[in-house]
Amino acid sequence: MQELDLQLARKTLEAQPFSRLVQARITAFGDGRAVLEVDSRTELHQQNGFLHGGVLAYAADNAITFAAGTTLGAAVLTGGFSISYVRPAVGRTLAARAQVMHTGRRQATVRCDLYVVGEDGEEALCAIAQGTVLSAAPSS
Amino acid sequence: MQELDLQLARKTLEAQPFSRLVQARITAFGDGRAVLEVDSRTELHQQNGFLHGGVLAYAADNAITFAAGTTLGAAVLTGGFSISYVRPAVGRTLAARAQVMHTGRRQATVRCDLYVVGEDGEEALCAIAQGTVLSAAPSS
Amino acid sequence: MQELDLQLARKTLEAQPFSRLVQARITAFGDGRAVLEVDSRTELHQQNGFLHGGVLAYAADNAITFAAGTTLGAAVLTGGFSISYVRPAVGRTLAARAQVMHTGRRQATVRCDLYVVGEDGEEALCAIAQGTVLSAAPSS
Amino acid sequence: MQELDLQLARKTLEAQPFSRLVQARITAFGDGRAVLEVDSRTELHQQNGFLHGGVLAYAADNAITFAAGTTLGAAVLTGGFSISYVRPAVGRTLAARAQVMHTGRRQATVRCDLYVVGEDGEEALCAIAQGTVLSAAPSS
Repeated sequence: MQELDLQLARKTLEAQPFSRLVQARITAFGDGRAVLEVDSRTELHQQNGFLHGGVLAYAADNAITFAAGTTLGAAVLTGGFSISYVRPAVGRTLAARAQVMHTGRRQATVRCDLYVVGEDGEEALCAIAQGTVLSAAPSS
Repeated sequence: MQELDLQLARKTLEAQPFSRLVQARITAFGDGRAVLEVDSRTELHQQNGFLHGGVLAYAADNAITFAAGTTLGAAVLTGGFSISYVRPAVGRTLAARAQVMHTGRRQATVRCDLYVVGEDGEEALCAIAQGTVLSAAPSS
Repeated sequence: MQELDLQLARKTLEAQPFSRLVQARITAFGDGRAVLEVDSRTELHQQNGFLHGGVLAYAADNAITFAAGTTLGAAVLTGGFSISYVRPAVGRTLAARAQVMHTGRRQATVRCDLYVVGEDGEEALCAIAQGTVLSAAPSS
Repeated sequence: MQELDLQLARKTLEAQPFSRLVQARITAFGDGRAVLEVDSRTELHQQNGFLHGGVLAYAADNAITFAAGTTLGAAVLTGGFSISYVRPAVGRTLAARAQVMHTGRRQATVRCDLYVVGEDGEEALCAIAQGTVLSAAPSS
């Protein structure tokens, strides 16, 4: 199992063309936690000027996967996740904060809170998610 | 309630900057169904050359929302969805096919099958999803 | 891997004390499908005379698990599921019909439709669900 | 909107025949939180001596619904929930602790942690869930 640290996590994110398209960044990584941030810019919006739900779903998916990487190693497969939207995502930056709730060798179960951070630094919860991630490493 | 047809659905999609960034298109719309397609191109991939899970999640979210629009009208809010990935999405085109399973006046419950279509036209299921969409129209 | 057939599935259900408490029965099993039925009786209701959502959730969980058993064998662990309620469950019998959408050796992804069947035999969809089930068999 | 307190919540639970069958009890209620407990006894088990997943699903469903009742009032409809099982539920008592993450007038979004409490009082997380609950009160 390859150990991951913030530097390596950033390289992995950088190696994802879609994450570059979205311009996501990882701001924290380790000990069962990962934080992924995306600045809100027009090309990520839906028709009403909010961040598109698909951007939130991308951020939840990826933050959950990275958080699981802190316990399962680099070779992981995301099994799926559920997301509930609670408020239109209007603000300067989206922050998806994922936390491993339980991990075994084969699978991690992860929660994610999605906040929008306003110009004034104030945060508002815009979605919550939970998902499972499987280890793709060969069993030893 | 504003009636939606395929032409109007396409205009709505075109009005979503993020859907333009992803280059999604709607290929079917009506009677509780919507099909959203995205051609696989490098900038939508993750690090192993598959379509990023976030692209699938975006497609599921949006296909579910559009399908609900066929029964609830144009003013809708997606409440949330669950997605299970079943196979790496490798192929020419992603097709997210959503179907309303039940609708009331206030809420629709929708399923979505996500297929990758290969160069040879062969299809493989890569994810399944289900979600709920609320009417945002003022009650009368 | 132990092959399961309807008779063995019924024995497994019978070996679940909670399924006996609920008085569930399996009416179909095989080829990626399982049907679990529960007759509506007062002690399964909530305060308004409908079947309790927890009974529907139990039926979805168990039908999904049994359906996965047709492809993964008897030793399985249900990873989780999502359920959306669409209508109060009023009727004579609850029928949870689960169908494997994709299976590998390690994991199956399953959908489930939950119907209430009225006195006249008419059926109404009352919930939809999807879930994942992991093989608990030792890898060979 | 009818105000709910712990006493009224217990009356509501008592009015649910299925909750009486399971012998669930509410041990905390208010300020966006509800705790529902179920003692583990043989008739709630599956074939391996663990609490049946359906019991956990029932507890998640009901704890989520009651927690939402603290913000939406007594007239609510649970829209659905997702549950991820993380560990076999072996222990003396199941405790489902639900917390409203966001509430509006029409809908609440709720998380639930499910713990098994052992004979020694030690707790182990056995599942996590999240769900949405709609107000069923007539709009004013």
